Amino acid sequence: MLRFCQFGAGRIGAIHAANLHAHQDAALAAIIDVDEVAAAALAGRVGARVASTQEALADPEIEAVVIASSTDTHADLIEASARAGKAIFCEKPLDLDIGRVEACLDVVREAGVPLAVGFNRRFDPSFAALRARIDRGDVGRVETVCITSRDPALPPLEYLKSSGGLFRDMMIHDFDMARWLLGEEPVQLFAAGSCLVDPGVAEVGDIDTAVVILKTASGVLCQISNSRRAVYGYDQRVEVFGDKGMVRAGNRTPTSVETATADGTVHDNPHYFFLERYAEAYRAELDAFIIALSKGAAPEPGGYDGLAALRLADAAWQSHREGRPVDL
Amino acid sequence: MLRFCQFGAGRIGAIHAANLHAHQDAALAAIIDVDEVAAAALAGRVGARVASTQEALADPEIEAVVIASSTDTHADLIEASARAGKAIFCEKPLDLDIGRVEACLDVVREAGVPLAVGFNRRFDPSFAALRARIDRGDVGRVETVCITSRDPALPPLEYLKSSGGLFRDMMIHDFDMARWLLGEEPVQLFAAGSCLVDPGVAEVGDIDTAVVILKTASGVLCQISNSRRAVYGYDQRVEVFGDKGMVRAGNRTPTSVETATADGTVHDNPHYFFLERYAEAYRAELDAFIIALSKGAAPEPGGYDGLAALRLADAAWQSHREGRPVDL
Amino acid sequence: MLRFCQFGAGRIGAIHAANLHAHQDAALAAIIDVDEVAAAALAGRVGARVASTQEALADPEIEAVVIASSTDTHADLIEASARAGKAIFCEKPLDLDIGRVEACLDVVREAGVPLAVGFNRRFDPSFAALRARIDRGDVGRVETVCITSRDPALPPLEYLKSSGGLFRDMMIHDFDMARWLLGEEPVQLFAAGSCLVDPGVAEVGDIDTAVVILKTASGVLCQISNSRRAVYGYDQRVEVFGDKGMVRAGNRTPTSVETATADGTVHDNPHYFFLERYAEAYRAELDAFIIALSKGAAPEPGGYDGLAALRLADAAWQSHREGRPVDL
Amino acid sequence: MLRFCQFGAGRIGAIHAANLHAHQDAALAAIIDVDEVAAAALAGRVGARVASTQEALADPEIEAVVIASSTDTHADLIEASARAGKAIFCEKPLDLDIGRVEACLDVVREAGVPLAVGFNRRFDPSFAALRARIDRGDVGRVETVCITSRDPALPPLEYLKSSGGLFRDMMIHDFDMARWLLGEEPVQLFAAGSCLVDPGVAEVGDIDTAVVILKTASGVLCQISNSRRAVYGYDQRVEVFGDKGMVRAGNRTPTSVETATADGTVHDNPHYFFLERYAEAYRAELDAFIIALSKGAAPEPGGYDGLAALRLADAAWQSHREGRPVDL
Repeated sequence: MLRFCQFGAGRIGAIHAANLHAHQDAALAAIIDVDEVAAAALAGRVGARVASTQEALADPEIEAVVIASSTDTHADLIEASARAGKAIFCEKPLDLDIGRVEACLDVVREAGVPLAVGFNRRFDPSFAALRARIDRGDVGRVETVCITSRDPALPPLEYLKSSGGLFRDMMIHDFDMARWLLGEEPVQLFAAGSCLVDPGVAEVGDIDTAVVILKTASGVLCQISNSRRAVYGYDQRVEVFGDKGMVRAGNRTPTSVETATADGTVHDNPHYFFLERYAEAYRAELDAFIIALSKGAAPEPGGYDGLAALRLADAAWQSHREGRPVDL
Repeated sequence: MLRFCQFGAGRIGAIHAANLHAHQDAALAAIIDVDEVAAAALAGRVGARVASTQEALADPEIEAVVIASSTDTHADLIEASARAGKAIFCEKPLDLDIGRVEACLDVVREAGVPLAVGFNRRFDPSFAALRARIDRGDVGRVETVCITSRDPALPPLEYLKSSGGLFRDMMIHDFDMARWLLGEEPVQLFAAGSCLVDPGVAEVGDIDTAVVILKTASGVLCQISNSRRAVYGYDQRVEVFGDKGMVRAGNRTPTSVETATADGTVHDNPHYFFLERYAEAYRAELDAFIIALSKGAAPEPGGYDGLAALRLADAAWQSHREGRPVDL
Repeated sequence: MLRFCQFGAGRIGAIHAANLHAHQDAALAAIIDVDEVAAAALAGRVGARVASTQEALADPEIEAVVIASSTDTHADLIEASARAGKAIFCEKPLDLDIGRVEACLDVVREAGVPLAVGFNRRFDPSFAALRARIDRGDVGRVETVCITSRDPALPPLEYLKSSGGLFRDMMIHDFDMARWLLGEEPVQLFAAGSCLVDPGVAEVGDIDTAVVILKTASGVLCQISNSRRAVYGYDQRVEVFGDKGMVRAGNRTPTSVETATADGTVHDNPHYFFLERYAEAYRAELDAFIIALSKGAAPEPGGYDGLAALRLADAAWQSHREGRPVDL
Repeated sequence: MLRFCQFGAGRIGAIHAANLHAHQDAALAAIIDVDEVAAAALAGRVGARVASTQEALADPEIEAVVIASSTDTHADLIEASARAGKAIFCEKPLDLDIGRVEACLDVVREAGVPLAVGFNRRFDPSFAALRARIDRGDVGRVETVCITSRDPALPPLEYLKSSGGLFRDMMIHDFDMARWLLGEEPVQLFAAGSCLVDPGVAEVGDIDTAVVILKTASGVLCQISNSRRAVYGYDQRVEVFGDKGMVRAGNRTPTSVETATADGTVHDNPHYFFLERYAEAYRAELDAFIIALSKGAAPEPGGYDGLAALRLADAAWQSHREGRPVDL
């Protein structure tokens, strides 16, 4: 039984807390949040205590932490947790600044604690199966990867201001997916972005629509497409093409119902957003973290994966701004 | 918070116990099973105590029971629970004998306690959505219903001997589905059965493959098809046709992955069996039971639904045996 | 180059004439129709002459006939063509009366001419591929067959009066499909029919909705479902289940376009009716007839297949009328 | 009745000749090919005469030409046909050299004859329906377009040497599709290419795998992906995303058959190549040409479309070679 504390009692925190509560080999001992009401409410639902950061990190019975607080607290909490000797599961991104992430990873390395980053999509059953087929050789050598990733609706402009921008906030998931599937690191990136959804996005210095090309040293090509608004739901698809075939993972739907009338044959739209689509992935990523710790293995994706995806996001921003490909 | 005890710590019992444990408005206080080791193991996992039938039914804090023990104990436990004033959720079938079911329902009626029967498929998100579309008028007046229901693999012949036969053990779910979707009661039934999967099935007096036609008073027609063995998994589909169109609910798959190679384009088979396909339905049926109790409403499907489906099963057995349609 | 004459210049005649005209190994020399204007128009489009029955059958250069005239003329034309030594392709049904069909087949047998019946669905690429998979053993031994066949819209009641009724006019195609797929002849049939689409159908003594169960000597089961009206188009599906799996052929659509909006994901309805769905089948059936003649092989499906399907249709009508299964 | 002659009796020539032969409002009078045996064979099949270029162009009864000869003859034949006052349908590309195409279009303009270019994909029923949905406003304002286009197998290296390269020979179709769907002209293009299928392709100075990004003045983004080899068949898909939804056209398959066994559920691969996939498109493009001529309307796509797609292809080659985006 692995005892956790968790930083953050918000939306994503509620998911992780429920998953830890239900896990056979984990116990959630303490919840820490600046919003003490939220912390108490969540703690009550999962039988945990409310704690302060200091108290929780000082508790020798707590072996692991989940960091699900706001992005600007991640790096500090990683360092504090590492220094306290805790195993760390941190929501993405580690930080929006590459220098800060590098410093943070140094502290983790020195402390010798395991660090996992919450790139949840690797644990989606469909994407995990897609990767397993590639590993099994079903499509042969990978030649092109195509990732489509669209959110259902634009977040508030207030959120976008501190989000780090589309590439660091949204496409960072797709950069991780690309690295995970390409089989080798990209060496060149070209990004083209537009503001098509809402002019207010441009006013806060961001874009809402973007496409990116990645190229690896051996010439494998990757396309990524993002939009901040898809009125039909959360559009999350991956296609990998190789010399022996193609494997793709499509959207998941709430039901299998299909209705045929004089107006056409209609089936479900994709799940509305990440809470529905990735419910299983959130369970599975914590499960994998717990299993890795129990085996003494390094959890995946780890701190370096968080850093590498952020570097691609920064390069994309530079490419978009300068209108030219960026060598990595 | 509604306090339950549960009879039965087997496979289906484990599912119900976990769902009660995770439910916000329910508490599982006690597990009762003749196999005390199984009872203790399950009780440990969900924080319940092991109890005897007498002790549990005498506990005034326990307001509701889940009956997930072997079929031959259902009727006695229903009656004992009813006399103890508990609300009852009972796995299907209530009993294999219609007379016994009728007697049992009399006791429940006298006691004035709510009784729900575990026809879980009504709570499958896809079938529930299909029914909602019919109710909304999407397909107009229902004219034909077609239900396909195939298990992945033949159960042990030992199981079949005491199962009550294909119609009472397996097709009973489809009879309930038919009643639920037809909008009126069937008045005639014709059944044709065969033993095609394993000659051993015939030796224990049963069949393994069957098709049935139901007809209602207004002429609505229903087809049901069953097989005890589908090598590609649990095949559970429903199609409803009306004057304004058709609605159908297909199988669900573990992933959305599709692989295209020189040999063809392959996607997932359906979920393997009921544990996977109906995981959400098992959660939802208990949830609906708890909500009905909290509102003082009669839970659905109720005791009469259990009886009516059993009557159809008996009529099917008679039709098959006598080679003629049976009026209901 | 095989020279044909064709009886009938109506809708189905136009299809056959165009297909003969485009065929590399066939020539359409003459068109015969009581409506001389129609005969002339069609003849003009395909470079044929208008002829009388006598003249055409007396022409020694004409080796084969296509009979696409009204049903009540089929038997006489078959006999006259057989006596003239022509190879015969006749639209279904050969006649609505079993005695007449038997007499007709006697004449054909005596004359020793080849006779093919236009059960076009056997030549649909999807159904032909389905049958090929069964023959290849992909699904093992066939255990159940399920045939769904719905027309888009009720024909005029005037047509229904002389149609022979739903079983002989519409389900006869499905009876042929069943015989073709079951691998052995049915020995028992149960039919249940209703008048749900239009009360006028009952007034002319017919039904518009029906389901049938067929059973073979070894216990293989077949379900057929018919409706005279499907507002979403021509619904033509076949599913065959065996001990090694299941093969099914679904509907075909005009395009592969799918639109996802806030209202759901919509794709095409099936093709509207037989002209669209079975365009390839009409080409292929004549092609198979021409190939069979060129090889001196008996064309399939032949006269006996026409008779056998009619016997099933008559049995279905009897079963429906008498409310009991009919032994075949 | 519009009388044609046709230059070219090869594979694509056979298709056009058969379609003209079957067309109600067209007659194919003459076939011209340097290979006189091929010309005679094709002419025999469609009831045309073999002719020389001079003779055919001098024939006043011939009003229109189809140019389906080798690419290097297109420009000369266009000019000669234009000067002879014939309406022209020319296979793509008009020429591989932009200067030559421009000169050629000047001659056509002076002659005042109609010129259509064989971008057949615009006439595929699925892509045509997709475009119609966009025009109807189903997806609102177009924001991103994604075009996937993969050939089943690498052509002979000998062919590649004179093909003009992947962008001019293969992706030119996708450039036309992009222009047709984007609603405005691209202003910037970035191309990344690789040689992954066969090193021999690099040896002849070409690539076999490429991805391209196009951007329009208003910021609409387009992705194109090409491979010269897809072992599962001809992969031809288009997806258009807008503020009101998404519309896509997928592949078409030979049949609708699906087989489910213990190994998974398998359905058809896409049609093998363009002859199968675009059979209807080839018929429809000539039909549209004939209709346009009969109405005195300019046929579409016209000469400028051929030129504009070639300009994009040249820009792609430059972008790929120089590793930078190219402004258009």
